[in-house]
Amino acid sequence: MIIHTPYIHGGDIYRNQVVLDFSVNVNPLGTPEPVKAAVRNAAENLSAYPDPTCGQLRERLAAVLHTEADWILCGNGAAELIYQFIAALRPSRTLLPVPSFSDYEAALAAADCIPSFMPLLREEEFRLTDRILPAITGETGLVMLCSPNNPTGLRIGRPLLEDILAKCRETGAWLFLDECFGDLTDTPTPSLAEILRPEDRVFLLRAFTKTYALSGLRLGYAICPSQDMTDRICRCSQPWNVSSPAQAAGIAALDCPEWPDEARRLIAREKDYLVRELRNLGISVLPGDANYLLLSGVPGLYDRLLRRGILIRNCENYRGLSSGDCRIAVRTHEDNQALIKAVREVIHA
Amino acid sequence: MIIHTPYIHGGDIYRNQVVLDFSVNVNPLGTPEPVKAAVRNAAENLSAYPDPTCGQLRERLAAVLHTEADWILCGNGAAELIYQFIAALRPSRTLLPVPSFSDYEAALAAADCIPSFMPLLREEEFRLTDRILPAITGETGLVMLCSPNNPTGLRIGRPLLEDILAKCRETGAWLFLDECFGDLTDTPTPSLAEILRPEDRVFLLRAFTKTYALSGLRLGYAICPSQDMTDRICRCSQPWNVSSPAQAAGIAALDCPEWPDEARRLIAREKDYLVRELRNLGISVLPGDANYLLLSGVPGLYDRLLRRGILIRNCENYRGLSSGDCRIAVRTHEDNQALIKAVREVIHA
Repeated sequence: MIIHTPYIHGGDIYRNQVVLDFSVNVNPLGTPEPVKAAVRNAAENLSAYPDPTCGQLRERLAAVLHTEADWILCGNGAAELIYQFIAALRPSRTLLPVPSFSDYEAALAAADCIPSFMPLLREEEFRLTDRILPAITGETGLVMLCSPNNPTGLRIGRPLLEDILAKCRETGAWLFLDECFGDLTDTPTPSLAEILRPEDRVFLLRAFTKTYALSGLRLGYAICPSQDMTDRICRCSQPWNVSSPAQAAGIAALDCPEWPDEARRLIAREKDYLVRELRNLGISVLPGDANYLLLSGVPGLYDRLLRRGILIRNCENYRGLSSGDCRIAVRTHEDNQALIKAVREVIHA
Repeated sequence: MIIHTPYIHGGDIYRNQVVLDFSVNVNPLGTPEPVKAAVRNAAENLSAYPDPTCGQLRERLAAVLHTEADWILCGNGAAELIYQFIAALRPSRTLLPVPSFSDYEAALAAADCIPSFMPLLREEEFRLTDRILPAITGETGLVMLCSPNNPTGLRIGRPLLEDILAKCRETGAWLFLDECFGDLTDTPTPSLAEILRPEDRVFLLRAFTKTYALSGLRLGYAICPSQDMTDRICRCSQPWNVSSPAQAAGIAALDCPEWPDEARRLIAREKDYLVRELRNLGISVLPGDANYLLLSGVPGLYDRLLRRGILIRNCENYRGLSSGDCRIAVRTHEDNQALIKAVREVIHA
């Protein structure tokens, strides 16, 4: 939680007057009704402790992901797992391409680890290239990647990802790969889980938060074949970190496999609309693969939209980005139209 | 969470056939209806992130506890805060009276800290005495206490507690005091929060889990005047560790101040009943101050009750206790009668 320090993420609808929140990147369809129903039902039995093993949820996840239940760790949101993994590993040298999600760096700092930043270049549209391969050496303790990346929305191509995995296997480096937005890409993104080997030093991060719009409930998971690592993480945290409503919601969500498919179709259609309209307004848009877009070149857009009740993600505090860089979520057509209307007014004001 | 290691706490209704659970110590009245309603309402808006500052909840708590909102940290259950506090402090020498809640030791072990155990003596009914005072020295980094203690139910008398606080102030030792069962004692237990000073190195742990039967939802909090400590803890964890349903439930619970009062009356009445009946059956019962009782002297009671669908807490894995020591929660009269009937059958079988 946060007491004294400023909040640097999107979604702060608590200290802003927000009518439309484009700052958080969740499924624009919202939460499936059966998932809400599972939470309502769980409200009837809150006096029992949650299953500390998340047994049923992990069995279901293992079946869906074609992996081992023993390799799955559940968390109080994916964010918890980032901090737990870094605290357990305390990596010596970490290779971290930037811009990327700021909590990787925050979790490293909390464990007194200073990463080596690898700048992704604006002139290359912030794409990760194979220049990362020679940077992974026997000295590298950890490589931290996000695909699709936040805030660019760009996916790492599968061949490059497999080359990175091979290089990590060869050098002994740990590979952390955040796949939290992988279900909301234009085409489904196959998880690296499918090709993991028991000896791999890999920590794949995935979430229900984005795919099923459960940010408020908190439910994420990781796939990690190393029993030594999963045991270390379990030893360092309480037994009951995943609430009963969250476990019930996760199980119900897995019964809604059509939900991300439907969202992907909506997102593809709406992303086309947003990119076209924003470019018509002279705004530079990075055409990412995910359910959000990185914009640049409109000074003051964040503040001026907020005055109209529209919250977007000001990205100037991302390492490697600067003033005027903003991220918007792809929402429903009605919401997106309202955004375009407001942006037009702001620009012409 | 737990993957490979055995689960050592009560409440494992997931791997046992349980009709009546006497192994967890929550309010026998269950969860207040307005609190359940708050969770059901929160289910309608799960796509927004929780307030990372828990602002409204902390303001309400500060008013109720006559303390500063800035001194309050909220957690995903009180258990999370134990691990967070120990990870942030990494105390050199920790004085830990035992038997007590096993996660203190587990959290210390996770931070590579080895406590000095101070045995509470069976012949003194496991009471903490003023022998602890000379044990707190300039070398002591941390004193970890639980009042009422788990699993004995015994409260530390207020004069002794104030002497311990004074000794900690004098020596510079941190004082961790778990007050999680303080609302469910025969008479209300005033929190030490009321006499804290801004310079105190004190971490008071409190929970909604027990008082409002919210174990499945996870909501605890700590009161700590040290901004250095609360900042360290916040830096080492994700911003959104307390879910929106949990925050809403906590706020709703604070609107039900009569709930713990009513529970205390029920618990006092039912504890009399249980103590009398159990002693009539020749069982040794420690008459604690809280909503649970430590029993001893019936070999095999745990297994034999479990075969009848009644789960109690086998305490033989508590440091300082041994085979035959068990803890039971005080539940409703109907449930308690069922327990006594089953114990009678087991003993006479």
